[in-house]
Amino acid sequence: MLTLYSMQRSGNSYKVRLALALLNTPYQAIEIDILRGESRTPDFLAKNPSGQVPLLEIEGGRYLAESNAILWFVALGTSLSPESRIERAEALQWMFFEQHALEPNIGAAYFWLALVKGGRVLQTHALEDWMERGYAALQVMENHLKTHDYFAARQLTIADIALYGYTHVAERCDFELDTFPAIRAWLKRVEDTPGFVSMDWRPDEVDSASIAAGA
Amino acid sequence: MLTLYSMQRSGNSYKVRLALALLNTPYQAIEIDILRGESRTPDFLAKNPSGQVPLLEIEGGRYLAESNAILWFVALGTSLSPESRIERAEALQWMFFEQHALEPNIGAAYFWLALVKGGRVLQTHALEDWMERGYAALQVMENHLKTHDYFAARQLTIADIALYGYTHVAERCDFELDTFPAIRAWLKRVEDTPGFVSMDWRPDEVDSASIAAGA
Repeated sequence: MLTLYSMQRSGNSYKVRLALALLNTPYQAIEIDILRGESRTPDFLAKNPSGQVPLLEIEGGRYLAESNAILWFVALGTSLSPESRIERAEALQWMFFEQHALEPNIGAAYFWLALVKGGRVLQTHALEDWMERGYAALQVMENHLKTHDYFAARQLTIADIALYGYTHVAERCDFELDTFPAIRAWLKRVEDTPGFVSMDWRPDEVDSASIAAGA
Repeated sequence: MLTLYSMQRSGNSYKVRLALALLNTPYQAIEIDILRGESRTPDFLAKNPSGQVPLLEIEGGRYLAESNAILWFVALGTSLSPESRIERAEALQWMFFEQHALEPNIGAAYFWLALVKGGRVLQTHALEDWMERGYAALQVMENHLKTHDYFAARQLTIADIALYGYTHVAERCDFELDTFPAIRAWLKRVEDTPGFVSMDWRPDEVDSASIAAGA
């Protein structure tokens, strides 16, 4: 069975939990609180030298890091991964966009404003940049979603899951989505998908039978 | 035939040119100078709403953006792409690492210090962060390369090409590699690969026959 090292309130970790829930894939979840230094222990660094969650343990001590690489791995051969070469590349295109344009800005703002006590004061200067670049990323997404229901292959894929991770918490860290109606509609579309779970949902409190029942 | 919109001095663009050269894949190259605003024209934005190079035109007006998604696309089914699911995921892991840990720091330092006149003065504050996070990324790479010749699948793959793009220009933008001997050896290993071309090599000056001859 897969083991997922994950932090409940991390958008990157949530992406993987959401994909595994949508796929009804059973796994063991281990909570790693990065705010308490649990990703910087010698034991964890031996598993992932980057010291980050999520981390997937696949088999016999083999570990896979990076949320979007994990998404790609768990979704291969399922409906969350496009079949054709070009559409799979287009899904990856949006996933790389997410990692350099969305996550470093909305993810950083979310971390410092919503998770770290006093974070706003510590990051006053950086916040301006995050807001400017985060809004630029949201505008690129809005423009795409004006004419597409999803980001790749005209269906829900790992590209949507990757982008949903931090877009859905944007309003918890100063971003306003009022001028992004297509993003709002897409967030709702993702949330209406059968099997969807919220970021608050805890995998260790639900067994695989109740996941199958859509809990 | 593929058409690549690329900027000669961009590390992200160079990654794709390097992969296509190693694969001996013919293509038409179109130079886009982002410093002169050529990626922000209405015509280019219609092709890539993110306004970035590289951009690959595949067929009949279908465009693929994001350097690492393009690498994945052009390398599929070749020796630059690992065959097994887990090794392919591990290559992607390093490529996502590159986009959030290496490129935003060494890539940004390279852009402002090596390409933009007066950039150092404009970015004094940001440069400190880029140096700190860039060195952290290099340390993660060094630790891996102490026990591995390449990043995934025990062979040269698109993961190495992605990471080579900005690592090889680190010393042009204040980073010192003296304390990273494993990275130095790996840079040399990549450069010794048959078919390797430098960032200065211009595809439009060489025809496909001379590429095949290893020019």
